[in-house]
Amino acid sequence: MKGEELLNRHLDMVDEEIKKVFESRTHPAQLYDMMKYHLGWLDEDLKKVEQYRGKRFRPTLCLLVYNAISGVYDKALPAAAAIELIHNFSLIHDDIEDMDEERRHKATVWKLWGISQAINVGDGMHVMANLAALRMADQGVTSEKVVEVLRILNETIITLCEGQYLDMSFEDRLDITLDMYLDMIRRKTAALVEASTWIGATLATEDASKVNNFRGFGRNIGLAFQIIDDIIGIWEKAEQTGKPKASDVRNRKKTLPILFALEKAKESDRKTLKELYSRPRLTDEDVEKVLSILESSGAYEFSKKMAEDYERTALQELAETGIENEAIADIKALAEFLIRRKY
Amino acid sequence: MKGEELLNRHLDMVDEEIKKVFESRTHPAQLYDMMKYHLGWLDEDLKKVEQYRGKRFRPTLCLLVYNAISGVYDKALPAAAAIELIHNFSLIHDDIEDMDEERRHKATVWKLWGISQAINVGDGMHVMANLAALRMADQGVTSEKVVEVLRILNETIITLCEGQYLDMSFEDRLDITLDMYLDMIRRKTAALVEASTWIGATLATEDASKVNNFRGFGRNIGLAFQIIDDIIGIWEKAEQTGKPKASDVRNRKKTLPILFALEKAKESDRKTLKELYSRPRLTDEDVEKVLSILESSGAYEFSKKMAEDYERTALQELAETGIENEAIADIKALAEFLIRRKY
Repeated sequence: MKGEELLNRHLDMVDEEIKKVFESRTHPAQLYDMMKYHLGWLDEDLKKVEQYRGKRFRPTLCLLVYNAISGVYDKALPAAAAIELIHNFSLIHDDIEDMDEERRHKATVWKLWGISQAINVGDGMHVMANLAALRMADQGVTSEKVVEVLRILNETIITLCEGQYLDMSFEDRLDITLDMYLDMIRRKTAALVEASTWIGATLATEDASKVNNFRGFGRNIGLAFQIIDDIIGIWEKAEQTGKPKASDVRNRKKTLPILFALEKAKESDRKTLKELYSRPRLTDEDVEKVLSILESSGAYEFSKKMAEDYERTALQELAETGIENEAIADIKALAEFLIRRKY
Repeated sequence: MKGEELLNRHLDMVDEEIKKVFESRTHPAQLYDMMKYHLGWLDEDLKKVEQYRGKRFRPTLCLLVYNAISGVYDKALPAAAAIELIHNFSLIHDDIEDMDEERRHKATVWKLWGISQAINVGDGMHVMANLAALRMADQGVTSEKVVEVLRILNETIITLCEGQYLDMSFEDRLDITLDMYLDMIRRKTAALVEASTWIGATLATEDASKVNNFRGFGRNIGLAFQIIDDIIGIWEKAEQTGKPKASDVRNRKKTLPILFALEKAKESDRKTLKELYSRPRLTDEDVEKVLSILESSGAYEFSKKMAEDYERTALQELAETGIENEAIADIKALAEFLIRRKY
């Protein structure tokens, strides 16, 4: 598939850049090796390994946007590396916060080395992101731009923390509105995709309206991406996701389709759904009941349409840049891949 | 006392600057309120309060060094705020990692709001430090200097993470040498004090040799500071520290005096000490036995001398700057206060 091939083509470029940040620090080795494990470079015994490393789609977007405007990649590499490191630092900490024992079919850092080490490994990865970004200065990016990009990156990280706070604070509540949910995913998920295209454009041009269009593309495709994730978590076939059927329902996650039903289903269904979601654990039968409420409320159609709306807005923003070249075609193919994926 | 008065004089200046960083972010309020609780501005119910907020001695050092060279404070304020925020982010995470339930006679963040929220609050405070530093650009600091200072700050934070990793990895080991210990505290404690004076000087002058002297002063006074902490944790009277007698021994902490005895005491004492430190819990009698081994090995004299040696080196570095003015006198008074303190 075009999108997958595209990602593979950029993956090594991103990882080579990240490796340069690691080269400057080597002691104590195990701290950095635990980070490398999380990045998919080392196995549990901290030996080198060839395995799935994640999609690296955020840095790829950053590189493609920079390339679409400038025709090259070079100056965007440090920021692309920084974006991937921010994503991974937040995953390491999220895994502790959510007590997730597996990520990308491997044990999480806290599961292997304990919570204390994992907090510190995440903190280290957070710093590595800023150190990666500071390498821009060595790539001939002006200090003014370095400061501008660092400001975007750090405003984005605090926005991620805001989203994570909101997500955790929603856990024990059944009064979350769709608007509250959209505000949360805008911060927790879309902000970093937005930063990827925003920074790619900021590094390549002084044209504020183009920068804004690319930024808008990132934000909207990020929102669509999260909603697709929500749909997959409920309706995608288990053989595609590698997780149990309707795993998000089973874990009583309050994603978009559920919140839609809690707000818009007929009253008796809303009541049943609330009652089911108040239980500590859902049986297979409960899960089926939730799925049938979602179906009769039209939650799937609603969510699908919302994702498509965000995707359409994203593509409009992209068209408004007025740029047409191979990199733009790649960005479209990547967006298509992220939205049509089944896992 | 001169030192205490000095600190109080700078505390509000630092906190006003930190507050400006908070003003730019208000949603979701509770995320920021938990940070403000940790900083001593709010109580457990997140209401405003007047209470002990910590010494803020690192940012004060940064401001005094900048002032000693330039005669004013202004341009150093954002970096000083950043340094204090780094210190506090690392405290929030250290408290989780060490399962400490109290800090400055108050419940720690994780104790009040749980580990997940506390990880995220610490992450947020970490970003706030970088955002504080980026305010330098608004204070008329050149972009080149902003980048230089951000590099020092982030190299310092990763060094703190290295120190924290080493400290945790030492926990279950009895083969830690004095050199390993000094390497650890250089990273975990001294590096941030070093950054304070290094950055203060970097912002004020292009004279690399002066910058190096101030940096050396910070590093050495930071090491002395930690060793004094180690001495207080074993020998200071309980009424001064507010903790049980010899609390570090009771908690089987392997601080400098203990490591000295493990390496240099007579063989039978080394054996006894090892055996005692392998127990899960120490009785009052065990603690007395450890104290007597420390006494006969000369651990107190050794530690005291090492702290004094670092202090002397620090003051030499300060003298080598060739600067003599009121700010330098204040720096000396502050160093004196940090070294002579009893708690």
